[in-house]
Amino acid sequence: MNTAAARRLASLSELACLVADGTATTRSAIVSATGLSRAAIAQRVDLLIERGLLVETEPAVTDRGRPPLTLDLASHELLVAGVDLGASHSRIAVMTLGGHVLAESAQQIDINDGPDKVLGNVRAELDALLAQAERPTGHLRAIGIGVPGPVEWSTGTVVRPPIMQGWDGCRVPGFFEHVYDASVLVDNDVNVMAFGEYAHRLVAGVADQSAPEHLLYVKVGTGIGCGIVSGGAVHRGASGAAGDIGHIQLPGLEDVLCHCGNTGCVEAVASGSAIAGALRQLGIEATGAQDVVRLAGQGNPVVRQQVRLAGRRIGEVLASIVSFHNPDTIVVGGIFAQLHEDLLADIRGVIYRRALPLATRTLAIETSALGERAGVLGAAKLAVRHLLSSAGIGAIIGDV
Amino acid sequence: MNTAAARRLASLSELACLVADGTATTRSAIVSATGLSRAAIAQRVDLLIERGLLVETEPAVTDRGRPPLTLDLASHELLVAGVDLGASHSRIAVMTLGGHVLAESAQQIDINDGPDKVLGNVRAELDALLAQAERPTGHLRAIGIGVPGPVEWSTGTVVRPPIMQGWDGCRVPGFFEHVYDASVLVDNDVNVMAFGEYAHRLVAGVADQSAPEHLLYVKVGTGIGCGIVSGGAVHRGASGAAGDIGHIQLPGLEDVLCHCGNTGCVEAVASGSAIAGALRQLGIEATGAQDVVRLAGQGNPVVRQQVRLAGRRIGEVLASIVSFHNPDTIVVGGIFAQLHEDLLADIRGVIYRRALPLATRTLAIETSALGERAGVLGAAKLAVRHLLSSAGIGAIIGDV
Repeated sequence: MNTAAARRLASLSELACLVADGTATTRSAIVSATGLSRAAIAQRVDLLIERGLLVETEPAVTDRGRPPLTLDLASHELLVAGVDLGASHSRIAVMTLGGHVLAESAQQIDINDGPDKVLGNVRAELDALLAQAERPTGHLRAIGIGVPGPVEWSTGTVVRPPIMQGWDGCRVPGFFEHVYDASVLVDNDVNVMAFGEYAHRLVAGVADQSAPEHLLYVKVGTGIGCGIVSGGAVHRGASGAAGDIGHIQLPGLEDVLCHCGNTGCVEAVASGSAIAGALRQLGIEATGAQDVVRLAGQGNPVVRQQVRLAGRRIGEVLASIVSFHNPDTIVVGGIFAQLHEDLLADIRGVIYRRALPLATRTLAIETSALGERAGVLGAAKLAVRHLLSSAGIGAIIGDV
Repeated sequence: MNTAAARRLASLSELACLVADGTATTRSAIVSATGLSRAAIAQRVDLLIERGLLVETEPAVTDRGRPPLTLDLASHELLVAGVDLGASHSRIAVMTLGGHVLAESAQQIDINDGPDKVLGNVRAELDALLAQAERPTGHLRAIGIGVPGPVEWSTGTVVRPPIMQGWDGCRVPGFFEHVYDASVLVDNDVNVMAFGEYAHRLVAGVADQSAPEHLLYVKVGTGIGCGIVSGGAVHRGASGAAGDIGHIQLPGLEDVLCHCGNTGCVEAVASGSAIAGALRQLGIEATGAQDVVRLAGQGNPVVRQQVRLAGRRIGEVLASIVSFHNPDTIVVGGIFAQLHEDLLADIRGVIYRRALPLATRTLAIETSALGERAGVLGAAKLAVRHLLSSAGIGAIIGDV
């Protein structure tokens, strides 16, 4: 590719991303956002419409007069899929580039059945969802997948996962590349959920300028993990391990052994499994995180006390992270986020008490906006982001 | 500015930064790094040479044959300055865009004398250094300044500093804008030091591909702070507070009161002042960090024991941060880095024991490469980075 073409693609990518993120969806908003001239924007927008990537539609006339034409990503030939794989669930969605979900399904799975069975099911389900949306296979151009373990991002390979039996060394994209003409992006499930919550708040935050710049997604469930979106991109760190906060040590708990072999890890005292264990010691029947959530939801005071204690302990870990990283948004998700009254109050209390005042001045601490759909929508949004990147957009619109 | 000109400037900025960082310093290296054609690079390089930003020189012929022509930033009309202000020292350097220091000086100051006196001295010293380098004032085009307190980066305003009496609300660039035709960038001193160590390793790491991507600079002195460079830029966080790790709470020290009003902060037990306090309780005369360093350097075993204990405590905080952020490089600087044998061994030991194995697999933990010059060189490099940015380069080379 020559220089001028490469630069044109970069500029078209920037424009398409503004529309996809909801940051600028009219020609004048794009002029303001990019600083380019009206004529230059018109030329690019017209090209993207002609090549089938953008559409321009007239919104309903309101009593405030005729609104400007609105740009959106085209939906007639380009689709992405999001796949969220958990230990025991899978959720799959087929989405347009503009973020409209055409078909979605959720299933019970066992991740320990291994990649052949689990990813075979994903393929079958993708085909079923495409059929349900009445779209040919060829429309699917990118697939984002979140898995419950560490992933080497550049190759999509699962690396020594603690809970995914049979997956070590599995290069996930290989299961899809001869089936679909689609790029496959694979990431840790918590990163994908973080990106989902980020992308959702980006669209929602345009009007009141509350779009996050540094967002942490903290998943509290059977384990405890964290996804980081900073400056618009997932922060994966030097070896893809960033956000792995479950084994950060807490003060005063040196006698509690964690399954990792260290002592005092937050996961060993504040995760769903840890709370269930503590409850059993108190004579309350609880086999895992789901029992804890159910009992707390029923108002059992001993269970609620244990959940609040867990909230304070998670808050202690997050207070240190807030002082170090200075995020503007912390989203608490996972099964425990359903107990937001108990859990969030204590997490918030400790963070505001312990972290630096300057670092918490504008910090929002919220429960998940997308709930159990954060992963599937985040995975699909990662796929959109890839398709609209400088590298991806050329494959869609052809020579420029 | 029209679109085409804006894009040409962005491309020229990218090229100039590759040369400045040492990442690509020959025409063929730039071709590889950018993916642009040889002709396109030639056209840009020739333009930058013609406009006086780049020079091309022939290195000495070696026994391996004639080496290619090497590109460097021009040094004859464009200078930057770095200013590192500490509580009791100031260090100032005048540097070429290519990183060659022409004149440098260090002085004892008292930051509590306030901005009028301290920044007045900086101006006088800058003039003296320019004179020493035999350069007119007009050659100075950007000044980077590090100060020992929180700074609002966008305006260069000092915000509620704990130790800088009389500086609260001071907009530092205002002291320079009618004196020099130079942009002024102001940042927290630890951020500036982090950027200095990063830029130094970037140049050094080109040959063996060890250039850092996620670097933390941990300053251990009277207090404890941290600067973060991630993806090539300083991570300042949502409100500029990122890296403020001195008040992270340590396990098992709930009875130690910190000057911030909380208990168990790492700064309250592992900083220079804290160690000096602990030594006084043991009957050893030590008024501050410098006494601790002197006594430990003399081999006093009790002092060394206290320093090693501090190292372990700093290591505990850093272990949590490593699990969260997954950096590839941690640089330990500040006055205590001189005691690297004692301090570093214990910091390393705790990090490798406590942080996740995946996160420490490729982690380098080193002492400062630039020592007490990290701040002044980092500040100057921030100034270079600004001048060569898309926005800055137009002011240097004129219309393109």
